[in-house]
Amino acid sequence: MRNIKLVIQYDGSRYKGWQRLGKSEMTIQTKIENVLSKMTDEKVEIIGSGRTDSGVHALAQVANFKTKDEKSVDEMMEYLNKYLPDDIAIKQVVEVHERFHARYNVVSKTYMYRIWNGRVQNPFLRKHVSHVIGKIDINAMKHAATYLIGEHDYASYRDVKAKKKSSIRTIYEIEIAQEEEGITIMIRGNGFLHKMVRIIVGTLLEVGLGRMKSEEVEHILQQKDRALAGPTAQAKGLFLYSVEY
Amino acid sequence: MRNIKLVIQYDGSRYKGWQRLGKSEMTIQTKIENVLSKMTDEKVEIIGSGRTDSGVHALAQVANFKTKDEKSVDEMMEYLNKYLPDDIAIKQVVEVHERFHARYNVVSKTYMYRIWNGRVQNPFLRKHVSHVIGKIDINAMKHAATYLIGEHDYASYRDVKAKKKSSIRTIYEIEIAQEEEGITIMIRGNGFLHKMVRIIVGTLLEVGLGRMKSEEVEHILQQKDRALAGPTAQAKGLFLYSVEY
Repeated sequence: MRNIKLVIQYDGSRYKGWQRLGKSEMTIQTKIENVLSKMTDEKVEIIGSGRTDSGVHALAQVANFKTKDEKSVDEMMEYLNKYLPDDIAIKQVVEVHERFHARYNVVSKTYMYRIWNGRVQNPFLRKHVSHVIGKIDINAMKHAATYLIGEHDYASYRDVKAKKKSSIRTIYEIEIAQEEEGITIMIRGNGFLHKMVRIIVGTLLEVGLGRMKSEEVEHILQQKDRALAGPTAQAKGLFLYSVEY
Repeated sequence: MRNIKLVIQYDGSRYKGWQRLGKSEMTIQTKIENVLSKMTDEKVEIIGSGRTDSGVHALAQVANFKTKDEKSVDEMMEYLNKYLPDDIAIKQVVEVHERFHARYNVVSKTYMYRIWNGRVQNPFLRKHVSHVIGKIDINAMKHAATYLIGEHDYASYRDVKAKKKSSIRTIYEIEIAQEEEGITIMIRGNGFLHKMVRIIVGTLLEVGLGRMKSEEVEHILQQKDRALAGPTAQAKGLFLYSVEY
């Protein structure tokens, strides 16, 4: 069997997230598996680096699948982009070692969160940014973010319905940049709990908007109580930026 | 009567263009006039700097209207952005001299055309760029563009169904820039004929793709025959960038 790795870009606006979901056609995984099954005449299952939630986007999601198909990777790429809807793009198709596993082999992941801080929403970015009105103190956010760096128990910063036992993760880096009316937050870590990035962003925004002090971010971390953190930031501003192996 | 000037940004994807069109609700002008009429309790008509076609966008369309309404310009801006759909944004509301006329007073207009030249379409820009595959020779396009600068009869570069008598216009500047997979063409002139920017772009692309020589652009200009020019580039890549008064 050949092992094929895909790098995938998608506008998640229309979708119920990455993960196959019963009979729903509206997940990214299902859309890609359907085209791959047609292409190979096999029942293809793809393994993603991880899920992305409903409405979340990806600049470079990674997945792999096994196949007996003999097409060249170039032919596969042409085929996929021809039959996939235009909000899903296959940026790369590479044949990899049989042991490569898109989920198990992840070393770290980088997420990007985009905020539009203009007085008026930007009609062109409206589906790919969260519009936050009001003066945002970027330096307070940067300071608050330092408390989240390192290995911590992020129980306060994950969805209350989360099922995984351990909520210990490591965040390597949080970068916050402002350019005119746009604010971009980059977060790199060894793994993320359900809704963790969006709850972190929602909490940092509380700090930026002056509703919470920077130091509270550390206090919340210690309390291991989701109720203390800020609101979950909107899905539409979140992008899976890259997956490192 | 007060004379109010609006600066308007819109994603034209869903609309049949700027201009009011019988009873259709799906023009930008109609959407704005409806909200203004509700706001002022008057029958408001707005004057745009000019039309934009179906599917064409604007970063800074300009319009003006007369009203007896006494709201502050700030209140008007809040009201408009609250009730307009999120693909139309009012960026500025200013009270101007009674003689200001958004169409008659135009000195020049700048259009931007965006091309995505990647092998694969960009899912996030797909509604705001024209996807052109193949190697594009930017220098050939730049050379071709020089023939179009100045005062000319652009009869070859306008829609065959155009009705205006004179097809003489002046183009002051054409700038073509390439950044990674994106190509941006900026065109500034004292006025543009129907579909003129898109036919110019379509023709420059023929040159860029090696299907036409740079010099033909001048020959086509001299022949005053629309059939000789290149195809009309897609509406979705075109933006009214600014209007100069």
